[in-house]
Amino acid sequence: MPFVNIKITREGATTEQKEALIAGVTQLLVDTMGKNPATTVVIIEEVETDNWGIGGKSVTELRKKK
Amino acid sequence: MPFVNIKITREGATTEQKEALIAGVTQLLVDTMGKNPATTVVIIEEVETDNWGIGGKSVTELRKKK
Amino acid sequence: MPFVNIKITREGATTEQKEALIAGVTQLLVDTMGKNPATTVVIIEEVETDNWGIGGKSVTELRKKK
Amino acid sequence: MPFVNIKITREGATTEQKEALIAGVTQLLVDTMGKNPATTVVIIEEVETDNWGIGGKSVTELRKKK
Amino acid sequence: MPFVNIKITREGATTEQKEALIAGVTQLLVDTMGKNPATTVVIIEEVETDNWGIGGKSVTELRKKK
Amino acid sequence: MPFVNIKITREGATTEQKEALIAGVTQLLVDTMGKNPATTVVIIEEVETDNWGIGGKSVTELRKKK
Repeated sequence: MPFVNIKITREGATTEQKEALIAGVTQLLVDTMGKNPATTVVIIEEVETDNWGIGGKSVTELRKKK
Repeated sequence: MPFVNIKITREGATTEQKEALIAGVTQLLVDTMGKNPATTVVIIEEVETDNWGIGGKSVTELRKKK
Repeated sequence: MPFVNIKITREGATTEQKEALIAGVTQLLVDTMGKNPATTVVIIEEVETDNWGIGGKSVTELRKKK
Repeated sequence: MPFVNIKITREGATTEQKEALIAGVTQLLVDTMGKNPATTVVIIEEVETDNWGIGGKSVTELRKKK
Repeated sequence: MPFVNIKITREGATTEQKEALIAGVTQLLVDTMGKNPATTVVIIEEVETDNWGIGGKSVTELRKKK
Repeated sequence: MPFVNIKITREGATTEQKEALIAGVTQLLVDTMGKNPATTVVIIEEVETDNWGIGGKSVTELRKKK
């Protein structure tokens, strides 16, 4: 019955990557915690780089510097 | 002063449905908990079916199988 | 398949109140949105009044003023 | 290492406003709590006014009344 | 830079299980998405069974029935 | 009407620190975004160091190494 919320920056994750992530997290909760996969929910939220900050700067700013 | 976050899959919820949900949840918190409706906040988040997984599969995959 | 997160201040909500809230929110999602109740998850989080602020003051401070 | 999630209605916040908010919250956690800014994450979520309710009404409805 | 929030019922997860979950989710984000593990944050929240509902019933009620 | 959720590790934040953080974040949303402080909600969540991971390790493990 776990609920997993994964926030990542919106930078082109593919449908295949999301499917692999959903399958992998669900299996991991079975393997490490013995949770029931049937009722395990995983939600992926993709956040614009303007709206994600780390170290006081937005990711948009940080990407420009590189 | 409650804060309610409702996540649903993005599959065509109408403005009228959202209004009914907001009004209903707010009234429910008055009726069951005696909360003040004036400061009750309800946020609805609609999540793409690619980004919502249950049982290790995305909802997009599950919808295809049906 | 909705996921509902309800945050309230920790001020003595009873088990009966929580049960009524869980049952009521689940039914409301059936009635307003046609959602499947079997996979509807409701999580109630109780937050200390020191840790909840509104209008720039903690609820602990606001309660004292009354 | 704090994690800050800020939800606002989607009503035209500019990139500059978001940068100022990210910088300001990060500095505030240094000043008030002694937190390490390098690992402080701030995420801003902009929510449609149809999807945000207060006092049992959506913000879309409330804006119309004014 | 992903942020992962895992909610589970509070039913005796051990420190070792939590460590395995944190390590596993972080590695999974490297493997499936190419994310940087150094800035990947994982937070586990344990929720009382009275406060977690599924199918309109609290987990406390559901456990009693079994 | 913003809603702010701040997650920090549970490592002894004082009531005074929390009050300063609530007041500061609320004022910051006025200054940077022109938000109404009266309806700005700030919730602080304190998370056990066993339950917070970064770089694939729990904060409990990381603190021991120092």
